[in-house]
Amino acid sequence: MSDHQIIFQVEDIKDPIEIIVPTGTLLADAARLGGVEIGQPCGGQGRCGRCAVQVTSGTIRRRSTLRLSQESIDNGFALACQSVVEGEATVMVPLQEKIARNLTTDRVAAEVSVPDGYSYETAQTLRRVNLQLNAPSMDDQTDDWSRVQTALRTQTGLSRTTISLATLRNIGSRLREGDWQVTAILDKDPHGETARLIDLLPETIIATTPLWGVAIDIGTTTVSLWMVNLITGEVKSQVAEYNGQIARGEDVISRIIYASKNGGALEMRERVLDTIDDLLIQACKRLNARPREVYKATISGNSTMMHLLLGIPAASIRLSPFITGVNQIPIITAHEIGLNIHPEATVDCLPGVASYVGADITAGVLSAGVPECDEMVLFLDVGTNGETVLGNRDLLITCACSAGPAFEGAGVVDGMRATTGAIEEVWINGETYEPSYRVIGNCAPTGICGSGLIALLSEAFITGILDKAGNVKLNLPTNRVREGAHGAEYVVAWGKETGSGKDIVLSRVDIDNLLRAKAAIYAGFTVLADQVGIPLSSVSKVLVGGSFGKYINVEKAIQIGLLPDLAWEQFEFLGNTSVRGAYLALLDWQAREKITGIANRMTYVELSADNTFYEAFTSALFLPHTDLGNFPSVKAALQIA
Amino acid sequence: MSDHQIIFQVEDIKDPIEIIVPTGTLLADAARLGGVEIGQPCGGQGRCGRCAVQVTSGTIRRRSTLRLSQESIDNGFALACQSVVEGEATVMVPLQEKIARNLTTDRVAAEVSVPDGYSYETAQTLRRVNLQLNAPSMDDQTDDWSRVQTALRTQTGLSRTTISLATLRNIGSRLREGDWQVTAILDKDPHGETARLIDLLPETIIATTPLWGVAIDIGTTTVSLWMVNLITGEVKSQVAEYNGQIARGEDVISRIIYASKNGGALEMRERVLDTIDDLLIQACKRLNARPREVYKATISGNSTMMHLLLGIPAASIRLSPFITGVNQIPIITAHEIGLNIHPEATVDCLPGVASYVGADITAGVLSAGVPECDEMVLFLDVGTNGETVLGNRDLLITCACSAGPAFEGAGVVDGMRATTGAIEEVWINGETYEPSYRVIGNCAPTGICGSGLIALLSEAFITGILDKAGNVKLNLPTNRVREGAHGAEYVVAWGKETGSGKDIVLSRVDIDNLLRAKAAIYAGFTVLADQVGIPLSSVSKVLVGGSFGKYINVEKAIQIGLLPDLAWEQFEFLGNTSVRGAYLALLDWQAREKITGIANRMTYVELSADNTFYEAFTSALFLPHTDLGNFPSVKAALQIA
Repeated sequence: MSDHQIIFQVEDIKDPIEIIVPTGTLLADAARLGGVEIGQPCGGQGRCGRCAVQVTSGTIRRRSTLRLSQESIDNGFALACQSVVEGEATVMVPLQEKIARNLTTDRVAAEVSVPDGYSYETAQTLRRVNLQLNAPSMDDQTDDWSRVQTALRTQTGLSRTTISLATLRNIGSRLREGDWQVTAILDKDPHGETARLIDLLPETIIATTPLWGVAIDIGTTTVSLWMVNLITGEVKSQVAEYNGQIARGEDVISRIIYASKNGGALEMRERVLDTIDDLLIQACKRLNARPREVYKATISGNSTMMHLLLGIPAASIRLSPFITGVNQIPIITAHEIGLNIHPEATVDCLPGVASYVGADITAGVLSAGVPECDEMVLFLDVGTNGETVLGNRDLLITCACSAGPAFEGAGVVDGMRATTGAIEEVWINGETYEPSYRVIGNCAPTGICGSGLIALLSEAFITGILDKAGNVKLNLPTNRVREGAHGAEYVVAWGKETGSGKDIVLSRVDIDNLLRAKAAIYAGFTVLADQVGIPLSSVSKVLVGGSFGKYINVEKAIQIGLLPDLAWEQFEFLGNTSVRGAYLALLDWQAREKITGIANRMTYVELSADNTFYEAFTSALFLPHTDLGNFPSVKAALQIA
Repeated sequence: MSDHQIIFQVEDIKDPIEIIVPTGTLLADAARLGGVEIGQPCGGQGRCGRCAVQVTSGTIRRRSTLRLSQESIDNGFALACQSVVEGEATVMVPLQEKIARNLTTDRVAAEVSVPDGYSYETAQTLRRVNLQLNAPSMDDQTDDWSRVQTALRTQTGLSRTTISLATLRNIGSRLREGDWQVTAILDKDPHGETARLIDLLPETIIATTPLWGVAIDIGTTTVSLWMVNLITGEVKSQVAEYNGQIARGEDVISRIIYASKNGGALEMRERVLDTIDDLLIQACKRLNARPREVYKATISGNSTMMHLLLGIPAASIRLSPFITGVNQIPIITAHEIGLNIHPEATVDCLPGVASYVGADITAGVLSAGVPECDEMVLFLDVGTNGETVLGNRDLLITCACSAGPAFEGAGVVDGMRATTGAIEEVWINGETYEPSYRVIGNCAPTGICGSGLIALLSEAFITGILDKAGNVKLNLPTNRVREGAHGAEYVVAWGKETGSGKDIVLSRVDIDNLLRAKAAIYAGFTVLADQVGIPLSSVSKVLVGGSFGKYINVEKAIQIGLLPDLAWEQFEFLGNTSVRGAYLALLDWQAREKITGIANRMTYVELSADNTFYEAFTSALFLPHTDLGNFPSVKAALQIA
């Protein structure tokens, strides 16, 4: 045994810290000796991955790499609590918040990049054309609209252009104001030489001036809007805000019920329109543009959100046999739904498949690239409902399970949405059963959000606080387990440390709700795999869309049996695939048609009519599952713990 | 000489009146002897034709038949003042008002008859289809709109149906209310198997139930509406009312000016919409129908009326070079213009040709049958403007002259519209210069309307009160000619007999206005004939449209040189050809396409840019014209008088 010099380079701190330690010293201990702060929420059990450091030179020995991807390992990452010194080494210690971020979001798609080879000329249906017209005279008394049509025909090759009455009312003054030099904004049929005239602007516009479109995703919780320059394809502004409908119901079901009341549908429509308007104003302000200059919108969202936006009755979505009013929505114009962009702007609502598999999923499947996959992949969007698609380039099969909003914090006593004060991550020391947690906004906690609940459930299970069936073991040597008002419970945070002064707990009732939610989702996977006739383990990738997927910890989600037990590398967190799909459709008519193709060929499995579902569901009501054989990594983790 | 028994059978009086008179007695004298009232407004000069009676048996000798058509003569009609007894005869005396009517309207088209061979199946684009749908189930979760589309495809053969967002909002409740037995109202593209869904009704409707459409003519003065059962093609109600815009201007020019003011366009639109709404309510009440059950409207009217209705700026119509915003108006829906029929009803505004040759003329040309004529015919619609079309199956040439509203009573001191109190017909005794007149409503006169002015001008000219140039001869032995405030004048009615207590006169200024108006119209004919290279006299028929044509006395109109001097038989008074054209277009898509064809092939001659027009105009500023050779019948009448 000999001593070795270990150099710690802490990110954002200029001077390295050097320390001499003997062979076999844990990197974590070496760091502590050198005064370098490395968090170990799991108590050094190698489970949380929060102590990941990067060995930039020298050698260390990794005892466990449970939380590291092969790529990370190749890049020198190691868990400080699971790695021992065997020689000199230089170790880079990332900022703690960066690690946290890394763990949960390193697989999130990078900043939005314009699709390769995007060409406004070939991909875009929106057209901006400068027109030179001859002024009328006694020798040429052609009416204004015919004059415009002729100019369009001769100067752009369009054989036929349609116009709305509202636009027809404006062209006369525009032509004269522009002294017969105008710019036409058109939406062209990609399959023919016909177009719809959106507006005539009384000026000549240079070709590089931005031409605005927006991609909108109406989530039950959050509305996202991307403002796009259609000339270059660039996303110039991304804004998001809570859906104003939240004040009238957390989930789609309560919104439908509210909308079915007198005046409720109108209020719902106005609330989401207000949200979109706010976003538009924000985005436009940043870009020095006006909402009226937005000539095209592509909208994605689940079927309920789409019905509520359009004012189409949604009641039948909620009641058996669960029928939507419309899946493939005709092209409409902005003024028809009251969207505050150019009143004649094209509004393209993307197609859904069924009551609980909406445009967010078809758009998500496109943006996740499922139709380009040779191997079978699982696409999922876990939110209020767990919508899942299993498929590849040949096949697409989908289902939705009413997971309920448990993972959005509802139905859980101390549950809350992922806002300031929410515990978003939890680690429990396997020896002391003491938790450590991270709170959004770094303040006193007031509740637990979805990702926190998954982590809490997982930690409680792995550390033995819960048994397989989710029962709290009351005989543990800690005062954090106790009999509470809703059955046995585990205290995550004592009243003295919380925002409300009350204890934050995970109760038996909460656990049951969470188990049902995760079981429903997992049972969905099972049913789809059964239908296709493959084992879940043969899925090559799991593509997770939605903001939920952005924050969950895969390992923990596997440990509770919410996600199938696949390798870290097989998961991809794609963020908001719905708005990204809307963006792709906004840019490129072929992408748009692909989404219709996806909607058309996707086979929908109605789980409530499926016998195998109930069976799969009951099997999944355990931690992680009745059949632990399907969860080898969890088995391993249990052995470590 | 011997005595003969003459039996007078007065219409509506049961018992005949018998009288014995000698050979050679005037029928008029025989009637007077028998106490039978026969009016002779012209004082028995054989000029007014008001004493026409029908000899049903026996013989009489006609000394003159100036006011009778050959057809009337063949039917035994004779002028009582110009016919002498030569044997026994039975004479039918029509009711006096009927004679008046006969004289002025006997060539007006009979009650509207459904076009020969009308077939809803082949001619109509509107479709009413009962649909049987399968109720959704867990095994068939097809969305409502796809379900309807499928039913339409399989049950009607339509390959594609479009729908508006507004209709989409309704179909879900209609399907359920009707328990999946519904009736679709569609507007079908006659050239393909596609259609637009107007509504779904939650019931099954039997095939013979009326299916309503309306044909509307928006005249500057009067709006006419025909309510039509599209199943049978029958016009079930005809209503008309003054255009509410009249309160803001008598003619199109003043309306355009008003509409160009702040808020004026909106007010104009609302005023005409209110008028149409009133008519709709009237028509619907009679038929026990609801305006919402009207699914299609075809609208005709001059270009200004059309622009004002649609809210399209009309200012450029008024100013050189006289440009319309649009001639061929796209199909719109009722809610877009605020028409109070079914909001999704098809509104088809017929096409115009130019600022002053509108849809009223293209529709009129169709309904007058011009495109079916082998020989050259003159179609004219005399109103505020004199729009004229010269043509046949091969050629259509048109012009409009700003006749001004003189013939609608404006610009004439005692002029008024054809309402109660208006002198509508005048006869002047050639010896005493005393007039007799007929007043609308049989009350004390308050003014003179267009037909009255024509008659007055003609009578004053024929009886020698006016010279060729329109000067009042002040040296006549009557106190009815005098120097007045507006130059020399003729007193038509003394103050003691008028509604206002003031004399009703025809002054020099009035005469000048009337001469200019009639000269403009006649010059239009001349220019068109010149362009085609034919003399006006070779025109085979003169087809007169418009309500004005319905009341004028052709002979008098010829005598003042307003109409070309052709035989009585060559004139056809067709009434409101515009609304009739709209009716034909409403019924039959091929008729509708013919109107577009008419609009497309009609050559428009802009008179204000035409040198020959001014020449023709000045030549026509005389009574009847500089060249009396063109007016042989007038020459003859002058000789009689």
